Amino acid sequence: MRLDFSVAVHSLLYLQAKQPEKVTSAQLADLMAVNAVVIRNTLSLLHKKGYIKGTVGKNGGYTLTKKLAEINVGDLYDLTIPPILSYARFITGDVTANALDPDMASDMATSLTDLFTLADDHYRAFYHEFSMADLAQDLKHHGYFKTMAKEKGLI
Amino acid sequence: MRLDFSVAVHSLLYLQAKQPEKVTSAQLADLMAVNAVVIRNTLSLLHKKGYIKGTVGKNGGYTLTKKLAEINVGDLYDLTIPPILSYARFITGDVTANALDPDMASDMATSLTDLFTLADDHYRAFYHEFSMADLAQDLKHHGYFKTMAKEKGLI
Repeated sequence: MRLDFSVAVHSLLYLQAKQPEKVTSAQLADLMAVNAVVIRNTLSLLHKKGYIKGTVGKNGGYTLTKKLAEINVGDLYDLTIPPILSYARFITGDVTANALDPDMASDMATSLTDLFTLADDHYRAFYHEFSMADLAQDLKHHGYFKTMAKEKGLI
Repeated sequence: MRLDFSVAVHSLLYLQAKQPEKVTSAQLADLMAVNAVVIRNTLSLLHKKGYIKGTVGKNGGYTLTKKLAEINVGDLYDLTIPPILSYARFITGDVTANALDPDMASDMATSLTDLFTLADDHYRAFYHEFSMADLAQDLKHHGYFKTMAKEKGLI
């Protein structure tokens, strides 16, 4: 699941590095050692949201439509890893009438769902603090993210 | 995986509700509709860390050793869901010598690992803002977590 996010950021950075050349999904599959279907699904998302333009097929390929500084990492995270809609499978409690304490189980499900949802909102906010230009900066100077996260009081 | 956390908080709240009675792992398995092995593994962790005391076997059972306000939700999260040690399977890039761009792939792996690790630290910090007394409060008055998270500037 999280791989889709990595494919998105890796693709965008490679497109940026290769500008003004077009890059094909086959090249990206090669670059990342990831199945071409995963690549194409992610490129399709990026295309739909206007991050890249291009065509498939002979002489096809993609180029970036935005500057890295204009691309928010959190937006890419939300796009490729949508929030979990139901936390049911992470929650305990038998709410059937004959259970030991169905009322407590029902309350637990509500409270834990709220807790997980709020924690996930908080988690995503972290990614929204960075742009793809920051990621490019960290690629060249590892440790940049950590310094920024500390300066912003995020960790 | 995250189920272990739910089992831990559910168990502790039930033990608190039943005080001074002892509660058995069989009762907890019944309460949560969760396999008894999962329950026993979690109880063993809670016992080792001194959150509960008690014995297995005939006339066995567990009681709480701490007040809910003394139990940090983040400590329980870290105990039951340890941080991922390697993000390798979420990271793209072929670093072998014949790959398209092994240097970029290697830099991507480092930067994405840092990004994921920092985001996880930030995520866990959310849980550390709450005690089990807060969770008990939210069980009775749903929405309490959300109000607190907003007041604390977490979301």
